[in-house]
Amino acid sequence: MDPLLHHMNQYVTIDESGFADIRDSFSLLHFDKKDYLLRAGDVCSRYFFVLSGCLHMYFIDEHGVSKTVQFALENWWITDLQAFRKNAESTFFIQAVEASHVMCINAGRYAELCQTNLAFANYMREINEIGYGAALKRIRLMFDDSKEEIYTRFKDSFPQFIQRVPQYLLASFLGLTPEYLSKLRAKEVS
Amino acid sequence: MDPLLHHMNQYVTIDESGFADIRDSFSLLHFDKKDYLLRAGDVCSRYFFVLSGCLHMYFIDEHGVSKTVQFALENWWITDLQAFRKNAESTFFIQAVEASHVMCINAGRYAELCQTNLAFANYMREINEIGYGAALKRIRLMFDDSKEEIYTRFKDSFPQFIQRVPQYLLASFLGLTPEYLSKLRAKEVS
Repeated sequence: MDPLLHHMNQYVTIDESGFADIRDSFSLLHFDKKDYLLRAGDVCSRYFFVLSGCLHMYFIDEHGVSKTVQFALENWWITDLQAFRKNAESTFFIQAVEASHVMCINAGRYAELCQTNLAFANYMREINEIGYGAALKRIRLMFDDSKEEIYTRFKDSFPQFIQRVPQYLLASFLGLTPEYLSKLRAKEVS
Repeated sequence: MDPLLHHMNQYVTIDESGFADIRDSFSLLHFDKKDYLLRAGDVCSRYFFVLSGCLHMYFIDEHGVSKTVQFALENWWITDLQAFRKNAESTFFIQAVEASHVMCINAGRYAELCQTNLAFANYMREINEIGYGAALKRIRLMFDDSKEEIYTRFKDSFPQFIQRVPQYLLASFLGLTPEYLSKLRAKEVS
């Protein structure tokens, strides 16, 4: 079964024939490791669904340091939502952490599908509610005083990330220095 | 015109008659200043739309300090989305910062409406996309080294907050100490 259809069926009811119109709205893309799906300064016109691999979204701070705000593994959606909604230039980069297969839909077709297809509209509502809820939880964690706790909670919630994502990107995402994350992980092993 | 119908029409097309079913799904509530709409430990079963007033959502950290993760003024939606989606106990408080009139919908009726009403499903998809996009932007700001910049950007984006929200809540939301925020504001005036 199509991975997107399979994922949609976890949230809404849709069959193969109802899905045809949705599938035709997407393009299939392959990216090698380190390839860019979006660069700061580009108009952000695409919403990505990951079939395989791993992506991250980051920005470069005033000191020239890359900071990861989001990852996406299989069955995750990723884009710079504010720029995508306005068809505006992004200030983020989206890059492949691993070689990745991705489906993407452009902003115009996305809006059309949502306006005509109740199952797709509800699926995307749910996807964005989940993302929004997770972002609020992350804001809460970032408020937390204990850096060690940030790592421990993340590890318990998303064990698959700890295995797959390079340590320097994980540190960036968690707001830790790579050296400090390294110490935490060494403490676990001992 | 009903404020919710007015707000929906900024995102989707819906008329008075199509709106009747939606309006009947909501209750009207009034809260005095400092009243609680949700307390940590409560099952979070309601999604709130603010007609007038101001609410905030916060948690209490391990040192007993309240930290605000979100505000809601007129025409804003607020709930603990993760708990609401699972009909689970919340770890957040939602409290009235000012006396507030609020519409609310419970989780069961919300799911039903979304599944049957394309306009409502798309309206809520857009609301959650906007919230999600804003939360990602906030995460980016929280990464920022310059505390002064966090305040300046927030002030430029949401001038109405600076006027209405008590300074200690604004400081909590921005991750600043009240003393530091006070200094920044004094510097502006001088």
